Amino acid sequence: MIHCKDEIGLIHAISNVLLLNKLNIIRNGEFVDEKKQEFFFRSEIEGDLDKNVVISNLKTALPEGAKIDLRKKRIKKIVVLGTKEHHCLGDLLIRNQYGTINAEIQGVICNHETLGNLAEKFEVPFVSISAKDLEREEHEKLIIEAINQFDFDYIVLAKYMRILTPTFVEKFSYRIINIHHSFLPSFIGANPYRQAFNRGVKLIGATAHFVTDDLDEGPIIYQDVIKVDHTFDPKAMSRAGKNVEREVLFQALELVFQDRVMVNGNKTIIF
Amino acid sequence: MIHCKDEIGLIHAISNVLLLNKLNIIRNGEFVDEKKQEFFFRSEIEGDLDKNVVISNLKTALPEGAKIDLRKKRIKKIVVLGTKEHHCLGDLLIRNQYGTINAEIQGVICNHETLGNLAEKFEVPFVSISAKDLEREEHEKLIIEAINQFDFDYIVLAKYMRILTPTFVEKFSYRIINIHHSFLPSFIGANPYRQAFNRGVKLIGATAHFVTDDLDEGPIIYQDVIKVDHTFDPKAMSRAGKNVEREVLFQALELVFQDRVMVNGNKTIIF
Amino acid sequence: MIHCKDEIGLIHAISNVLLLNKLNIIRNGEFVDEKKQEFFFRSEIEGDLDKNVVISNLKTALPEGAKIDLRKKRIKKIVVLGTKEHHCLGDLLIRNQYGTINAEIQGVICNHETLGNLAEKFEVPFVSISAKDLEREEHEKLIIEAINQFDFDYIVLAKYMRILTPTFVEKFSYRIINIHHSFLPSFIGANPYRQAFNRGVKLIGATAHFVTDDLDEGPIIYQDVIKVDHTFDPKAMSRAGKNVEREVLFQALELVFQDRVMVNGNKTIIF
Amino acid sequence: MIHCKDEIGLIHAISNVLLLNKLNIIRNGEFVDEKKQEFFFRSEIEGDLDKNVVISNLKTALPEGAKIDLRKKRIKKIVVLGTKEHHCLGDLLIRNQYGTINAEIQGVICNHETLGNLAEKFEVPFVSISAKDLEREEHEKLIIEAINQFDFDYIVLAKYMRILTPTFVEKFSYRIINIHHSFLPSFIGANPYRQAFNRGVKLIGATAHFVTDDLDEGPIIYQDVIKVDHTFDPKAMSRAGKNVEREVLFQALELVFQDRVMVNGNKTIIF
Repeated sequence: MIHCKDEIGLIHAISNVLLLNKLNIIRNGEFVDEKKQEFFFRSEIEGDLDKNVVISNLKTALPEGAKIDLRKKRIKKIVVLGTKEHHCLGDLLIRNQYGTINAEIQGVICNHETLGNLAEKFEVPFVSISAKDLEREEHEKLIIEAINQFDFDYIVLAKYMRILTPTFVEKFSYRIINIHHSFLPSFIGANPYRQAFNRGVKLIGATAHFVTDDLDEGPIIYQDVIKVDHTFDPKAMSRAGKNVEREVLFQALELVFQDRVMVNGNKTIIF
Repeated sequence: MIHCKDEIGLIHAISNVLLLNKLNIIRNGEFVDEKKQEFFFRSEIEGDLDKNVVISNLKTALPEGAKIDLRKKRIKKIVVLGTKEHHCLGDLLIRNQYGTINAEIQGVICNHETLGNLAEKFEVPFVSISAKDLEREEHEKLIIEAINQFDFDYIVLAKYMRILTPTFVEKFSYRIINIHHSFLPSFIGANPYRQAFNRGVKLIGATAHFVTDDLDEGPIIYQDVIKVDHTFDPKAMSRAGKNVEREVLFQALELVFQDRVMVNGNKTIIF
Repeated sequence: MIHCKDEIGLIHAISNVLLLNKLNIIRNGEFVDEKKQEFFFRSEIEGDLDKNVVISNLKTALPEGAKIDLRKKRIKKIVVLGTKEHHCLGDLLIRNQYGTINAEIQGVICNHETLGNLAEKFEVPFVSISAKDLEREEHEKLIIEAINQFDFDYIVLAKYMRILTPTFVEKFSYRIINIHHSFLPSFIGANPYRQAFNRGVKLIGATAHFVTDDLDEGPIIYQDVIKVDHTFDPKAMSRAGKNVEREVLFQALELVFQDRVMVNGNKTIIF
Repeated sequence: MIHCKDEIGLIHAISNVLLLNKLNIIRNGEFVDEKKQEFFFRSEIEGDLDKNVVISNLKTALPEGAKIDLRKKRIKKIVVLGTKEHHCLGDLLIRNQYGTINAEIQGVICNHETLGNLAEKFEVPFVSISAKDLEREEHEKLIIEAINQFDFDYIVLAKYMRILTPTFVEKFSYRIINIHHSFLPSFIGANPYRQAFNRGVKLIGATAHFVTDDLDEGPIIYQDVIKVDHTFDPKAMSRAGKNVEREVLFQALELVFQDRVMVNGNKTIIF
């Protein structure tokens, strides 16, 4: 993945480096942010390579300050944070078990004990850290300690119902993915289905996004909606919405774990 | 259509009245707002009837204060307000011409002259009232005068880009339908596609709603969305979104013009 | 649920019986098949009742030959048949565990051992009956014996990859629900994703239906699709399609297990 | 657009040619058909070029037999064939009028006079050629004569309800786009909504495809569906389906007219 100033000849320059290193391009994608005049590029390549040589060649070929991220295709390691709801976690555990997601769950950390039984069924380490009687910072410190026991690439908030502090978010910049149960930017914050019910919307949805300091304001990776009607109270919306949440989170994780997502300010580019 | 306090036996009471008046039920729908303990009912009936007798029978059979709205099935008369965009108006004009919407356009009123040519092609009266050099109230007064030339049931805002005053809205309570180019409550107000682009959403949409005093806050009738990606700038969003706007407005009008919509506070019930 | 010849006054007649028995109607639905002149009706009612009295009253009130099906609201008992694929079964097991489907899985029967481990995690009885070296009829006889160990309302074919004989189907008439991995009637039979790939379709889907003697020809309960493009080979289609299969099967089961489905010839009526 | 045998280094070879000719790449797309080992490529480029030089350079750089199709970005010229239904034609005429499709309608040819009035409103030449008392070949000969009066890139069958002979199809190979009112391959041939009704499907749809000799078997460009339920008779399906037909045809035309579609056997590749 490459991110640099836009100029003429970049694709040729890149493909030249790849050819010189005898690398085969499986799939390319590029995007130019016209306003910022920035170039985003992703290539899936195959072949033996000397990482240092390729990066060095690319640096020479590309404009000053180009960000080059050369990754080996591999299964990502993840830690999942949850609270009490099982639907997203259950889906991830089954996918983890059967290899139908490009990730391995290293551990599950919750602020309640409810989901311990589910994680254990799938022999995934489970840690429960109650927030009871703790200040937000104290609780988060314990969560961070628990997370750091594990070796991981990404943190997945699978309906983790607590707000993270900027300290936490900063530590794991663009490595935390959250599922929010509304089509953002509608219904930010608590009880989105209640908000949706009160507004009388005819669609409900879910949004998966990278977590940043601003609550529910991070770069959106994937969103989807389903239709509802006047017979749906908040409980029925929540029940129907859980399927969308689960699906949207999975679709976003697929993209991220296949290294198909680049961040451009508060937006994502999906290749 | 009936709206009253909920109690046991209402459906029986209503069907009893219909039977006594030798009316055949084609299709029934009912909904109880559990919280407010209110009953909403709609029946499509056929047969000869004495309107006064039926209403009087229903009044006797139903709780005190029941609202009874007995309508003959008929083609609605509408006035369309627009500005410069042709896609919603064009669709309505073609449907008007071929009878594929349950309405007859009495006239088209715009604050620009742009769409006059289109309305004239379909031989629909066109009035252009420029807002130039006029105070909002002055302009609206002229619009109301123009509207009142026509005999109509509903006013359709087919991308009418001006905000209506409470005075206007009050005059035509729940008889004005607007199409807003976002999935409300996201992106209220001006330039929703620009707002959507800035937020980096992966869905854009449209919402048709009854107009009330609060901008874009009226009861929602129909909404839909389409997917977009990082390659969509506001112009591309607008281009793609126009198809959704046109479709959402039509779907909402279908429902309203078939008398399938009841208003419940700031929500709609669709039978 | 009532199914009888159509005539004027049926809804009144039914609501009269319900009122006399002091039953409250929560929700009604009716449909008239105009061509066959048949009336379908479903009512959710609450209150204490003497089943025999109500049925007898309804029989008197309704045309000769009316089919009346008065069911107590309850959690359905089901047996799940599978082969090797885990995605539908896994979803049902988790829903079973957490009560997010209106059913209790009595047992899982497969023609391979693969899924035994998954069923056991959730402490659901698992029976594996290999079809190896057996005639179709022999194998099916063993399956039926295994099924009959359980007390159940419905059989769910959760990607059971064998064709059932008419004998089997007849035994459990309209009590078997299958998920087929295409939008029927396209791609009946084996390898629908391969067929879809070969045809170059831009949508793939899934269909849940009652099983009848004709392969993939039974009454459809629910269908849905997702978009695909030229980059999808049959394997990628299958991978993406599994989420739709799982969702479509669940949506169909929701409807059936909430007694919202009536069969009308080779079609379903969903209330 | 380039189509050739796949081998390593093609993208580099192409970008090299573009760079040498001082052409800027706006957007690239490539696809490898793994099974056939064929390479498909499309690039949007800008800059002054000598067409012969660029093609000659590309021929030298690419494998023997490479198909190179270098097109100037321009508005396509089209002829529309119809019968009696107005919804697709009406949409195209309005888009033609307002420039919201990348095409100019040169003429409309129908086998009935019905739509003449509509074409005339938009000042587009209209030819009506009745098939009455004519053999298929005779009628088609007259249609071809009428078509050939116009200078055009593509023929759009906007609900043209007659089957074209192989002679016709061959003359305009991959230049004829049809809209069929079902999600193919379901419901090929006549009366797809009737077929859909008889089968009891819960989705209806439309398919836009290039026309080949086999009826409704040509490469699919775009498809979409909407949900229906048991209350839809064939007429209601047709009414609801018209919106999908119109939308699907437009989406397919957008792709074709922007030169984003390549044909790969009986499939399309959409860049």
